This record gives sequence, C-alpha cells and structure tokens, in this order.
Amino acid sequence: MKPSTSQLDANGRLRHLLTLDGLPQATILALLDRAEALRAQSRGGTVPLNLLRGRTVMNLFFEPSTRTRTSFDLAAQRLGAQVINFDIAHSSTVKGESLLDTVHTLEAMHADAFVVRHKESGTPGFIAANLRSGAAVLNAGDGSHAHPTQGLLDALTLRQYRPDFSALRIAICGDIRHSRVARSDVHAFCALGVRELRLCAPPELAPDAAEFPQCRILNDFDQAIAGVDVAIMLRLQKERMQAAAIPSEAEYFHRYGLSTQRLARAAPECLVMHPGPINRGVEIASDVADGPQSLILEQVANGVNLRMAVLAELLAAKA
Amino acid sequence: MKPSTSQLDANGRLRHLLTLDGLPQATILALLDRAEALRAQSRGGTVPLNLLRGRTVMNLFFEPSTRTRTSFDLAAQRLGAQVINFDIAHSSTVKGESLLDTVHTLEAMHADAFVVRHKESGTPGFIAANLRSGAAVLNAGDGSHAHPTQGLLDALTLRQYRPDFSALRIAICGDIRHSRVARSDVHAFCALGVRELRLCAPPELAPDAAEFPQCRILNDFDQAIAGVDVAIMLRLQKERMQAAAIPSEAEYFHRYGLSTQRLARAAPECLVMHPGPINRGVEIASDVADGPQSLILEQVANGVNLRMAVLAELLAAKA
Amino acid sequence: MKPSTSQLDANGRLRHLLTLDGLPQATILALLDRAEALRAQSRGGTVPLNLLRGRTVMNLFFEPSTRTRTSFDLAAQRLGAQVINFDIAHSSTVKGESLLDTVHTLEAMHADAFVVRHKESGTPGFIAANLRSGAAVLNAGDGSHAHPTQGLLDALTLRQYRPDFSALRIAICGDIRHSRVARSDVHAFCALGVRELRLCAPPELAPDAAEFPQCRILNDFDQAIAGVDVAIMLRLQKERMQAAAIPSEAEYFHRYGLSTQRLARAAPECLVMHPGPINRGVEIASDVADGPQSLILEQVANGVNLRMAVLAELLAAKA
Repeated sequence: MKPSTSQLDANGRLRHLLTLDGLPQATILALLDRAEALRAQSRGGTVPLNLLRGRTVMNLFFEPSTRTRTSFDLAAQRLGAQVINFDIAHSSTVKGESLLDTVHTLEAMHADAFVVRHKESGTPGFIAANLRSGAAVLNAGDGSHAHPTQGLLDALTLRQYRPDFSALRIAICGDIRHSRVARSDVHAFCALGVRELRLCAPPELAPDAAEFPQCRILNDFDQAIAGVDVAIMLRLQKERMQAAAIPSEAEYFHRYGLSTQRLARAAPECLVMHPGPINRGVEIASDVADGPQSLILEQVANGVNLRMAVLAELLAAKA
Repeated sequence: MKPSTSQLDANGRLRHLLTLDGLPQATILALLDRAEALRAQSRGGTVPLNLLRGRTVMNLFFEPSTRTRTSFDLAAQRLGAQVINFDIAHSSTVKGESLLDTVHTLEAMHADAFVVRHKESGTPGFIAANLRSGAAVLNAGDGSHAHPTQGLLDALTLRQYRPDFSALRIAICGDIRHSRVARSDVHAFCALGVRELRLCAPPELAPDAAEFPQCRILNDFDQAIAGVDVAIMLRLQKERMQAAAIPSEAEYFHRYGLSTQRLARAAPECLVMHPGPINRGVEIASDVADGPQSLILEQVANGVNLRMAVLAELLAAKA
Repeated sequence: MKPSTSQLDANGRLRHLLTLDGLPQATILALLDRAEALRAQSRGGTVPLNLLRGRTVMNLFFEPSTRTRTSFDLAAQRLGAQVINFDIAHSSTVKGESLLDTVHTLEAMHADAFVVRHKESGTPGFIAANLRSGAAVLNAGDGSHAHPTQGLLDALTLRQYRPDFSALRIAICGDIRHSRVARSDVHAFCALGVRELRLCAPPELAPDAAEFPQCRILNDFDQAIAGVDVAIMLRLQKERMQAAAIPSEAEYFHRYGLSTQRLARAAPECLVMHPGPINRGVEIASDVADGPQSLILEQVANGVNLRMAVLAELLAAKA
C-alpha cells in the first residue's frame, strides 16, 4: 500500500483536495475568490457554464448523503461535466471487488475526478495515493478526519458577512471528537487568521487538547458562547449521546443546545452556522435555526459555488 | 404550518400544479395545446429543445414509480433542463431531517421545480405553501388526492380521438374511493364540459356521493358501461380487494373486469384507457388492453408531451 | 410469445446486438474498426461527440452491475445521447407489471435503445422480438447465454496487441458451463479465425463438447495453458465452487488459478485477460493480475469505445 499522497504538486498547485490541514492561506483564498466569481458567472446556478465540458466526474458515496452528493452533482453539471453517480448498493463491491479494483476500473473508463465519501478516515487519501491516471480526488467527508469542502464553504459564508477574520471569535460546539466538520473548520479558520477559536463538547466527546493547540477546549457551553461572534453547532449523532452519558435529547439541549437565551450570551448579532442536517430541539432550537442570525441556508447555497470552484481548480487547469 | 397555497397567482397564471380542482378551462386547454405544439417541435421526443436550459428540476419521489418519474425525467431532459433524481432511500430523511428542511436545503442549491410524489394527500401543497424561493411544485401524485398531470394527459389523449367533449359519456371503474387518478380525471373532464360521467366501484370502494355531485355513482359495471364512449379502468391495489370483500382476482374480474364481452355493451368503438401499470386479468382482459380500442400506450406517449408543457408553462415564463 | 428475432435485417445490417453467434466476420471487424475510430475522435473519452444527440438510451439492468452499466452509460453520454438508468428495485415490476408491459411503456415514451442485462438467458432476444417500435436492443449479458459486447471488446483488446488471429492459441479457463463471457469470446475468436481455442474447467463445470466443436475441452489447467499466447481467466462464482466439489478457494487456486508459475508454462509474453471483477487469489494471483502481461484494464478502457461503436452502429444509421 502506497503511503498517502500529497495534495499539492511540486509547484504547490492543488492536485487533490483531501484535507485543509496544511493548505496555504493563498490557496484557500484563491478557492473562495473563484467560488465568488463562479457564482456571479453562473448567476446563482441559472446560467450553465462550459468550463468542464468533456470532463467526467464520478461520485463515489460509500455513505448515504443528500446534500453533499447533490451539491457536488449540481456543481459538476453546472460546469458542463458528465456526472456518474456510483450507486454503491448496486456496485460490484457486492461481488466482493476491492475498493482499489473498483477505482482502477473506473479510471480505465476515463474519470477526471472522483468525489469520495467514506466512513473510514483516510480512504480518499488512500485512493489518491494509488491512482494510475491523472484523476483528482475530492474528499467529500471521510470518517472523523476531514470534510474540506465544508470547511471552505463555511469560510466562504462567513467572509461574506465578516470579511475581517482577525477580529472574529468563533465557538464550535458538539461532538468535536468525532467531527470531520470541526477539524476542517479549525484548519480553515486558523489559516485565515481567526482571532480566537473555542471548541465546546461534553467531556466524553471532547478532543485531545494536543490535537488543537490553537483552540481553547471547554465543556461548559455558557462559558464557550460568551461574547463570540460566530457559533457553529454540530449535528449530534444519536448513538453518541449514550457515549456522552447524556440520558435524553432534552437533556442534551439543556446543556449544549443553542437556544435564544443562550445566543443572547454571545456578542450582538452573533452569526449561527450548522453543516446540516439539523436536529431541531437537540443541538439547536428551531427559532434560532430559522432566525435572522442563522446562515444555515447560505451555507448550502455557497456549497454549490465552492464545489464548482474546487472542481474548476482541479480539472480546468489540466485542459 | 402555513395553509396550502393557491396554485394561481394574482393574475390567474399557473405558479404550481397541485390539483385540477378549480383550474379554469382556459388554463387546461392552453396546457393541452402547448403539449401538442411541443410534440411537433420535438418530433416526438427526438429533437432536443433548449427551452429550459439552465433550469434545475428536482424529482422528489417518496413513493416508488417507474412511469411517472421516467416521464418527468425525460420531459425535463428533452427541454434541456438539468435533472436531479432525489433518491429517497439514500436521502438524509435517513438521518431524520424533516421534509421541509430537505426542501429548503434543495431550494438553497437553486431548484426551479420540484416534482413531488408522496403517499400522503396534501404533501405537494404543503411544500408549495412553505417554499422560500420562486420554485414551482408539480404534484406527481399525492395519496388519494390528485394526480393532475395524469388527468391532463388523459384529456389530451381523449381529445386527439374525440375532440367534442360535450358529446362524450365516460365511465371510470375501479377503486374510486382511493383513486387520485379518478379525482383528477373527473376535474379535467368536467372542466372540459363532458356530457356524462359515471363512476363505478364495489360498494366498499365507492366514493361519497357528495364529493362528486356531477357524476352518477354505480356499483354494477354492466350498467355503468352500457352505451359509454370511453371506459377508464383503474388499477386494483391487491390490498383493497380484501377491503371490498372480494375473495379473489378472478371474482373481481368477473364483477368489475373489462372483458371483450363487457366492452360490447358500450357504444361502438368505445375507447379504453388505463393509467397503468395494468393488472392483466384483474381489472382488464389482455385482449382488451392490447386491442384496437385501447389507448393505453398513447396515454404514456402523451404523458411526456404533457409534462413538457407543464414544465415549460411553469418555468419558461420566469426567464 | 413471438419467437426470438433475428439481429440482422434483410440487408444484413445490424438491428440489435443479441449474440455473436452467427455474426459475420465483416460485421465484427466493422465494429472493431469503428471503436478505434471513435476512440481517436473522442480522444479517449475527453471530447464529447454529438452523434446521438436527441437519442434516448435506456439501461434496463435486472441484475446489479458496476462496470457494464457505467460503461454503457458513459458510452451513450459521450455520444451526446440522453440516458435513463432504470432502477429495477424502484420500478413498477414492484407493482407486478410484466416485463413486456414495462418495455412497451418505455417504448411509448420514445426509446431508441434498450441496454438489457437479465439473469435469464434469452430475455434480450425476447424483448427484441416483441418490440413495437424501431428501438434497438443491446444485450448486456443474459444468463449463461451471451455477453456480446464483452466478446467484442476482448477481440478489440487482443487485436491491439496481436493483430494476426490466425497465429493465436487461446485458453479460456474457469466455469465455462455457466459463462456467457466464454460463449461470446468463442464466437468472436472463431469468427476472426483464431488458430486454436482451448476451454479448461473442472469436470463439473465443463461444457458439453457438442456445443463447442471448434474447441478442445480440458480439465487440467497445466495442460490447457501449455504454450498458449493468451489466457483468459473467468470469475468464479462462489456458489459454483460447491457444485464443482472444490472444498476451498485455496484449493481452486491450486488447481485452476493463474499463478506466475503456471503462466510460465504458456508461450513467452502470453497475454492475460479477465472480464472482471476479479477474485484475487482465487482464479488469478494478484501479481499476475497487476503484472506486465495483464490486459485487464485495457479491456475496461476498450469497453467504453466498443459500446460507443455498437450504439453508433445501431442508432446513428437510423437518423
């Protein structure tokens, strides 16, 4: 097994997008700028572009997903690419074919990009390291490792409202330990020079402090949210609640849910974000999710533009 | 929860297609005319049109369906739209996301139309009433409420053979009580001024007479079919047979099936229709379904043209 | 039920592709040549062609498949056709609609081609014989009967390395009795005038000698591979191993697996092929599958080009 590959080539150009860890600030800013440009060019997705005409994008989702798969699908289609949605349930993994044999087979049919979601951390990197063609791998979420397009679209969304990251205090709250979104957000916000980053979780779901030397780690949400400019709430997986020794959803909401009352402890006009899908009344109250400070649907809209930018960056240059 | 929305805007223009109930005759005729025009322009679906280039149509089928989903898919593709087939089994409804959160998420990615099939009556109307964008909702069948494109394509098909509705006596036979097709057919045919409309069902599956003041309701099929110009047979759901206290498929066919002998009681050259998929030997004999008076496959062909017309009407005007 | 139809019209032109049995050499060569031409024109699948613009290709896969369905999907898309992937699990076969009713319904929506995979031998031919339109049927594998595009792509791949078939000795090894691939390969290679063809299988999985008068049938793999120029290994279905009274995968590999040692008994530079997906360590050793003599991924790449050629041949001429 070849070791995981670098996502940058010898000239520092992006070849794959596997993680935001170590991605230079300039690369991140270029992707955000390109997303804004593509949003304007495509007029919010209503004018088809031809940038990826003749390109083939293959969505390999080994975990179910609505929003991320559809977002990548639309992004690729709106750039003129051909999209193959690889249905894992009907795939020959059924017949016991190995992951790499499947990938090499699809490469042989000519694929320009693989968009990969997998429950095992490192799978997209493993695929990237073992490719035999010049195809690009886009990590669409792997285990608890990374979800780089989510980190980038969160940064893009935030920048539209608060362009000066050096002034921002951000709290991320929920199951930090198992969250690929939290990791990619931390890498994006740190690269962009955020002022302060707090991670809040129940003790059992808190990360190792050593992994996040740039962050304050807290167990008390009232303390974590005090005075922040942005609150990012994470989805609670039901099965984690037990691990956290929290007896009920009501109890989780009581301790770690973002209610209007709690939001009042943050800075005025504190922005609220969530990668979705939300659990109403668990990690976030409905009136907060639907309220004027919520950017949740802006995140979704920006997701398509950001994924167009990543696909364009990785594929258009090869033309 | 907002109440169900009107499908017509202040100027009487169609904004959604939720039901044929109350739809003006002029609106119905305009859709049928447009379907004929698009059939000619696309030469039966072989010349791609660009009317909906840059538009995104999302098929949300919460119930399995071959013909209706494929028909909408082809209609949208042949008009140049991008189509997303939302696979419910793989959707984040898996993760417990609410219906409206799913819809709002997809709206945020920019959807011009949602084609919705759902087993609960009223779901498309509920979605339409709660949209946050200018997207259109097309009801592709909801519970026992309505299947408006089926009603329109039945009218379109019939008009090609019998343009004068005021001369037509039509019988619809089967499980009227639970049939969205029957309801939409009744609304279409009444709006177009049909001479006589008979609804025939086993007593347990007959509708409340109050719901259909324009129709004669009968339990005897021999009586219902006598002298009619058109017989529309409905698919029998196996689980309804028990409710109707009918012991076997053979017995259902004996009492309510359309055989050659029974068809002979109708007017000469009586036309035979069925929304499909058919149960051969249950509600219709094979030789009738495949015979010269059957319009079943013409209905299917017209379905694509009619759905092109509805999509064009709802989306092209917004350009 | 109409009898199976001929795949050639009165002028000897291909109307369907159901089997390679009886297909003239000139027809086969024309398809291989067209595949090469399309590969060049599309520059390996990166330049979209418009040959099938306005055409509708429907993939009807009644058996799961990754590579074959994706290969046909890409082939059709790269020629500019619209593709409908008919999801059998969600289809109205669920509702008990017969196969032919489904096909006639899809025909009525206008389909130019049906690509059919089915576990029952003869299903594509049965569909072709019962069509009501001018649509073409492409057999994508039916039971143990035929897999004609696989036979053609194997011939195409082999021709790129060894253009003179009259010099070639080929061994096909595995479950010959149940293999549609073996049958289509035999028909292709015999039509192209191969020098010698050996079929090797465990006794219980060997075919009737009468079916393959042109071939030597052997049970001993060491004998079968001796001196051959090409070894084609077949996938072992796990459930067949029991029928063959072989106690384990290791034992199958010991007797019938292609190891480096065994490959050394063949002619120098013997080519290795496999239709995929491969069972590593069962019918083929990993180092052979991934070694320099293996054409497995070339087969996959050629599959798309060959399927483009068949679609173009069957559909473009009708324009």
